[in-house]
Amino acid sequence: MSEIFVGIDLGGTNIKIGCFDSQLKLICKKAVPTEADMGPGVVVDRITEVTKKLLTDSGLSLEAIGAIGIGAPGPLIRAEGIIIASPNIPSFKNVPLRKMLSDRFGKPAVLDNDANAACWGEYVLGAGKGVDDMVFFTLGTGIGGGIIINGKLVHGSADNAAELGHIIIYPHGRICGCGQRGCVEAYASAGSTAKRAAEAVKAGAQSSLKKTLDEKGEISCQDVYEHLAAGDELARQITDETAEALGILCINILHVTDPKRIVFAGGMIAAGNLLLNRIKDFFDEHIWSLKAEAVEICFATLGEDAGIIGAAALAKQAEKNTGKFE
Amino acid sequence: MSEIFVGIDLGGTNIKIGCFDSQLKLICKKAVPTEADMGPGVVVDRITEVTKKLLTDSGLSLEAIGAIGIGAPGPLIRAEGIIIASPNIPSFKNVPLRKMLSDRFGKPAVLDNDANAACWGEYVLGAGKGVDDMVFFTLGTGIGGGIIINGKLVHGSADNAAELGHIIIYPHGRICGCGQRGCVEAYASAGSTAKRAAEAVKAGAQSSLKKTLDEKGEISCQDVYEHLAAGDELARQITDETAEALGILCINILHVTDPKRIVFAGGMIAAGNLLLNRIKDFFDEHIWSLKAEAVEICFATLGEDAGIIGAAALAKQAEKNTGKFE
Repeated sequence: MSEIFVGIDLGGTNIKIGCFDSQLKLICKKAVPTEADMGPGVVVDRITEVTKKLLTDSGLSLEAIGAIGIGAPGPLIRAEGIIIASPNIPSFKNVPLRKMLSDRFGKPAVLDNDANAACWGEYVLGAGKGVDDMVFFTLGTGIGGGIIINGKLVHGSADNAAELGHIIIYPHGRICGCGQRGCVEAYASAGSTAKRAAEAVKAGAQSSLKKTLDEKGEISCQDVYEHLAAGDELARQITDETAEALGILCINILHVTDPKRIVFAGGMIAAGNLLLNRIKDFFDEHIWSLKAEAVEICFATLGEDAGIIGAAALAKQAEKNTGKFE
Repeated sequence: MSEIFVGIDLGGTNIKIGCFDSQLKLICKKAVPTEADMGPGVVVDRITEVTKKLLTDSGLSLEAIGAIGIGAPGPLIRAEGIIIASPNIPSFKNVPLRKMLSDRFGKPAVLDNDANAACWGEYVLGAGKGVDDMVFFTLGTGIGGGIIINGKLVHGSADNAAELGHIIIYPHGRICGCGQRGCVEAYASAGSTAKRAAEAVKAGAQSSLKKTLDEKGEISCQDVYEHLAAGDELARQITDETAEALGILCINILHVTDPKRIVFAGGMIAAGNLLLNRIKDFFDEHIWSLKAEAVEICFATLGEDAGIIGAAALAKQAEKNTGKFE
């Protein structure tokens, strides 16, 4: 029996766990509530139990595991496998998660940022296949990122690289949750897109979204794209602002790391070509005229499994390459 | 006799040539006019002759050369050693400069972007010493850049990484020479700083710079900093706009590659702490509140020799590491 690699995607609401064979083919997976307020010990217990059951149901045992990969929200100290803090999992402070899991499983483990793990998943098996240089953006409540250069994830001097949602593109602009003004996240995340739409409707803009706001008390990003598809003019304007911010973001990252491919992931890509084509339009509108750019801008292909696939792939890589789980 | 490494900094006006020992200690150097309109063949002849004379005068011969490094304006195809084109050296189009020099010297040669070469020089022997992750900005007529990650230069998928002057920070803002609007170069290069000052004076701003403009017909960046030092209010405003753009640039690059150190070089750093401290002020004003940032922002230390030092160091590295001159 070849080795099993376990990929864990630790989120504020759910933990996703996947078991993969040595070719990174999914054997089994499950999502369970995080219930982080029970404390890290209970969370680690649950991960161990669920993984054991998953493997047993597939006729396997914990002994078959080669290594475990964990993607978790940061900031974290990767080399030490410690989660420093997390806005979405407040009970996790200075938690040595890698050691805790490694001890419980009796197997080596590797910890990385959740966006990096998802980026690595797309790079290895998804939209990044076939290139050496890629940049990855997750468009969710916020905007996360990952950067691959020469086939390697960029972590930075203090594991804080690829905080790409906090690139400032409108100085003195909208306030971001991080405290900066004018971050791309404050314009183009799913959360900000929804917020800008609600603000516009409340300010009196004519839109079919007004009914949504009146009925639900809020507007979601999904609402914006549904009304866009139905031809609403405000939804079109809001989408254009989102797409323009993302087009400029693509230009800025192109001028920094010169990727071959830029991949957008996250809930917002459900908007499909209505969004993707506008991002490309604004990229073309703002990009320099010095030379033609060949960068490909596309959507991710692995969906919600990118995180567990990437975490398992990082575990496999750590084991194969160096035996060094940092 | 240990090996000699030759570093060449090919500019639109001058060619700088330096000969270094195997510890990268300067033995001799010289600058000669480029006279690029005579064609690449003549330029290569001149480089060869000057180098030969430099070595002879130091009691050495061409045979002592281990390898040659060239920093040249791009865009270029590094792996093939070809300069594709250069705004400042119009006669150089698709010139296989690396092969031409290698053939003439009978020694291996390596070609890289001039800003990358200077960045590498500062990294190896200057302001970047002691760190693994650094970002480098040259503040001259334009703004160039170089990025070091894990002790390696980042070149990107098509050798166009680190075009850092063309990060957009004011969408729909000032037009840049590259065709984009709102590039940091359009605000914070020496050229743009001078231009903004002249525009303000012509528009009627009160300033001691008016006399300069009236007498010389133009205002230089150096004028702006001299009048700043003398207490001129317009010079202060212009400098603050420059420093704010550079502070935001530092934040943006911090969120991408997470460098330990950010190094500014180029003619404009002659402004000294009057400029550096304002860049740091604006960095502090705009940076997020999520965590304290430990990145060091400082000025380069090698002056105009950074290019030849870096080119020689790239040659040495290529020879020692791999024997691969790409």
